[in-house]
Amino acid sequence: MAAPTLIARLFGPDKPGLVARVAGWIYQRKGNIHHADQHMDVAANIFFQRVEWTPQEDAPAEAADFQEFAANELGMQVSIKVSSQRPKVALMVSKIDHCFHDTILRFKSGELAGELVCVLSNHPDLEAATQAYSIPFHYCPVQAANKSSAEATQLDWLRSYQVDLVVMARYMQILSDDFLRQLERPVINIHHSFLPAFAGGKPYHQAYERGVKLIGATAHYATPDLDEGPIIHQDVTRINHRNSIPELVRKGKDLEKSVFAQAIRLHLDSRILVYNNKTVVFD
Amino acid sequence: MAAPTLIARLFGPDKPGLVARVAGWIYQRKGNIHHADQHMDVAANIFFQRVEWTPQEDAPAEAADFQEFAANELGMQVSIKVSSQRPKVALMVSKIDHCFHDTILRFKSGELAGELVCVLSNHPDLEAATQAYSIPFHYCPVQAANKSSAEATQLDWLRSYQVDLVVMARYMQILSDDFLRQLERPVINIHHSFLPAFAGGKPYHQAYERGVKLIGATAHYATPDLDEGPIIHQDVTRINHRNSIPELVRKGKDLEKSVFAQAIRLHLDSRILVYNNKTVVFD
Amino acid sequence: MAAPTLIARLFGPDKPGLVARVAGWIYQRKGNIHHADQHMDVAANIFFQRVEWTPQEDAPAEAADFQEFAANELGMQVSIKVSSQRPKVALMVSKIDHCFHDTILRFKSGELAGELVCVLSNHPDLEAATQAYSIPFHYCPVQAANKSSAEATQLDWLRSYQVDLVVMARYMQILSDDFLRQLERPVINIHHSFLPAFAGGKPYHQAYERGVKLIGATAHYATPDLDEGPIIHQDVTRINHRNSIPELVRKGKDLEKSVFAQAIRLHLDSRILVYNNKTVVFD
Amino acid sequence: MAAPTLIARLFGPDKPGLVARVAGWIYQRKGNIHHADQHMDVAANIFFQRVEWTPQEDAPAEAADFQEFAANELGMQVSIKVSSQRPKVALMVSKIDHCFHDTILRFKSGELAGELVCVLSNHPDLEAATQAYSIPFHYCPVQAANKSSAEATQLDWLRSYQVDLVVMARYMQILSDDFLRQLERPVINIHHSFLPAFAGGKPYHQAYERGVKLIGATAHYATPDLDEGPIIHQDVTRINHRNSIPELVRKGKDLEKSVFAQAIRLHLDSRILVYNNKTVVFD
Repeated sequence: MAAPTLIARLFGPDKPGLVARVAGWIYQRKGNIHHADQHMDVAANIFFQRVEWTPQEDAPAEAADFQEFAANELGMQVSIKVSSQRPKVALMVSKIDHCFHDTILRFKSGELAGELVCVLSNHPDLEAATQAYSIPFHYCPVQAANKSSAEATQLDWLRSYQVDLVVMARYMQILSDDFLRQLERPVINIHHSFLPAFAGGKPYHQAYERGVKLIGATAHYATPDLDEGPIIHQDVTRINHRNSIPELVRKGKDLEKSVFAQAIRLHLDSRILVYNNKTVVFD
Repeated sequence: MAAPTLIARLFGPDKPGLVARVAGWIYQRKGNIHHADQHMDVAANIFFQRVEWTPQEDAPAEAADFQEFAANELGMQVSIKVSSQRPKVALMVSKIDHCFHDTILRFKSGELAGELVCVLSNHPDLEAATQAYSIPFHYCPVQAANKSSAEATQLDWLRSYQVDLVVMARYMQILSDDFLRQLERPVINIHHSFLPAFAGGKPYHQAYERGVKLIGATAHYATPDLDEGPIIHQDVTRINHRNSIPELVRKGKDLEKSVFAQAIRLHLDSRILVYNNKTVVFD
Repeated sequence: MAAPTLIARLFGPDKPGLVARVAGWIYQRKGNIHHADQHMDVAANIFFQRVEWTPQEDAPAEAADFQEFAANELGMQVSIKVSSQRPKVALMVSKIDHCFHDTILRFKSGELAGELVCVLSNHPDLEAATQAYSIPFHYCPVQAANKSSAEATQLDWLRSYQVDLVVMARYMQILSDDFLRQLERPVINIHHSFLPAFAGGKPYHQAYERGVKLIGATAHYATPDLDEGPIIHQDVTRINHRNSIPELVRKGKDLEKSVFAQAIRLHLDSRILVYNNKTVVFD
Repeated sequence: MAAPTLIARLFGPDKPGLVARVAGWIYQRKGNIHHADQHMDVAANIFFQRVEWTPQEDAPAEAADFQEFAANELGMQVSIKVSSQRPKVALMVSKIDHCFHDTILRFKSGELAGELVCVLSNHPDLEAATQAYSIPFHYCPVQAANKSSAEATQLDWLRSYQVDLVVMARYMQILSDDFLRQLERPVINIHHSFLPAFAGGKPYHQAYERGVKLIGATAHYATPDLDEGPIIHQDVTRINHRNSIPELVRKGKDLEKSVFAQAIRLHLDSRILVYNNKTVVFD
């Protein structure tokens, strides 16, 4: 098994020598850089970097040192993780199950660098299927009347599992601002259109009505503004006049599965930096 | 050289036996069907067909007979053309020249089944380039103050060339309702976004701002509602955070050229039926 | 629920009036044609048609009548099925499980118009997973020494289930000529390259060595000539120099799943005609 | 106008600290790194880098210094250029003109970072078209009998223009080993198939015969082994049974144009490193 690496993501005001100083810091400690990817937002004068290296000694200690160096000496915002840490992921779902099965099978196959620790749902339908995968299932109905107490229950569950990431596999409820604020963890949603086209409900119906020739899917971080969060990944597929709405739904499922999985993969591989409601994706 | 074929496009309320009656009519006259493509809009109960055959005798006469048969006996709206007729096409352009060159070269190579008869522009910039292609160039500045008289001039030119189709190769002016109504000819526009996302001005800037991961181009028939006409063809290409707006523009040019050309080809091959602000494209 | 339709696929030497005679036959019996799609191989003078209609009366009887009409009066080779018949499908697999899970879940979701009746494997690894899906699993090891007796066992199983179609979800054994001849049923295989590039073993390694910029997957009917059968569907995805062989494998899995599923769908929807080691796909 | 940058491409045996030493060298001279992209071929233990920076002082002098540093102190093979240098490009063509027009128009629009200095052809057909673009045209027929003297003539022309790059826009002759050796300049060829499928002559005919569902185009560096050189860029487009060979040719043209242009762009932007008959493309 490969030795654990350190993966740092940093961004902040550009200044001369950032690449040299980061690489020099690592070289001094006899670290071996595997990947180093930079980006400059020239208009905003912001420097972004993802750098991955094998530390010579104790990885967590070096991570802490680097964190301090990058924050204090370089003035960067920085996230750093040891590659052997596997983030804990919760999946939220309603009744539609294609992303649910696909995501779970990808976690089980080892394709995604995290641990799927629980499934939360506002419907009981997928309880047996979840348990067949040996994953805990938590059911809590959500209606207008009980929304805030339901969200409190959900937050309790997510905290009890020490979840690092929530992924919404076609979860058919809007998360409140309050929920997102208290969760303090990123939430990835899959929307079944090529955003910003067809935001909101029934996007395949909207696409059919408008007569577009491609349908899409968009994975984004959830924010209080519905379907307005930073886009992580998108893809499209061709349709034609013969395709009825059920066929759009069927074709769209394949898109949703692959776009959602790719977004989760990029996040768990620490390849995403969010800035100004957009993403820098180092892939 | 192949004998001319007849190409009929029909649509109207579905009723039993339409396929059989059309095919039977042609068979009786010893016509040889090369292609016959149908579509049913089940929700609206509308039947659409494109059928192409080699007539035994005089093509224009048989075309007229078929027209009457399909309209009177089948109750269909019908367009029919003899394949050897080459529609006359006018190209409208401003200063941006990538679609301009690309479209003209495709006409010159014989790739498009029509005759490019003139170029109209609201700027003089592409006069020499147009003349180098041995195509007449007509310049008429269009400003807010003179818009209606400028459009009258343009209509005169288009009528004098007996134009069958107008294609807007990044013509940076909105055609008025009046112009479209008086023209009585279809107009194909290329919009540099994946409509309905980023309608209106500066779509690449809008796309950059929103942080989408794909940019697109859309060819559609122009209608009085800007960027709302029936979509003919669309395509997208992948971008990433490294791509500045000029790079989106550069990548988008290739999309615009191929999407625009494909829409013109489909139109000139009589493959498009418009219904309910959408297109049925028999390709 | 919709009334059953009849779906006929025919091909044979072209002659005048085929479209009219088929449509006329159906119209006479008051059938309602939903789809009729033709193709002419002009070089070979072969006519191909797929036609789907709702019969007025007893579907199986009309199917038999049509079969006789198309064969005897039109001189066509014809296959006809009642849409409510659901073909029985056997899945062959070894150890690699991504196509296995994906295909089974698609059958279970109702996305594929057939019945998955059994799984056959030359390894015991996927027995528990198959049974968790409530599908019978049959294990028979296949080595050079016992290949012909193993294939006899497999044939017995397939016959006992009255299988109409065999799909190989990354089954890592070559089926013998004898097996294919005795089976008398189509077999769909998924090959993990863009055929004809990289036929044979370890295609992702071959692709990596050659330095191609796209990898592909190909679904085809199995024939005695390995990887030479009629191609049903293909797709590709972009790779770059950063992608190691394991990453090609990972990216390829998504391709394999969707290409394989699409081929099975097209087959079960009776959309494929095979002629001259190629496919005509009416989609 | 932006200050000129230096663009260095290096590769060689990996050793600790390469990123740091390169970045440190630049930082010491107060250079500002815009892009730095690395790649490790782990199996071969080879380090690849492309780094672009604005030098503080005289660009050519700093380029020479860096060259020495990277070669002598780091043991790397290195190419370095000043961004304001515009490589001189010769285009070779026969009669087919779609890539010819497309490439010239892209150079003229400023989209490609080089100077198109001449067109060489083995046919006189495109002389007038070339001159209409105000580019010198040199015609030299090439037959089996005169091949070596014809190639000598071509080499003379290319040398007299001090050409840095030759691009073959569907030039229908094989360049001899001798020619390539004496030229000592890279040659980019566009092949009209998805290599390694359908190498050699008439690839669209081969594709039609095999019944593939996608056709492709491949841009690669020419080497003495026909169609075996390092692949720079590839793309594909979907076809179906309706597409005759002329339609494959027509669809393929658009692919060839965009794939060829992208390869030329990547080369002129110094984004390609060739190693082991493969390319590392930093895009």
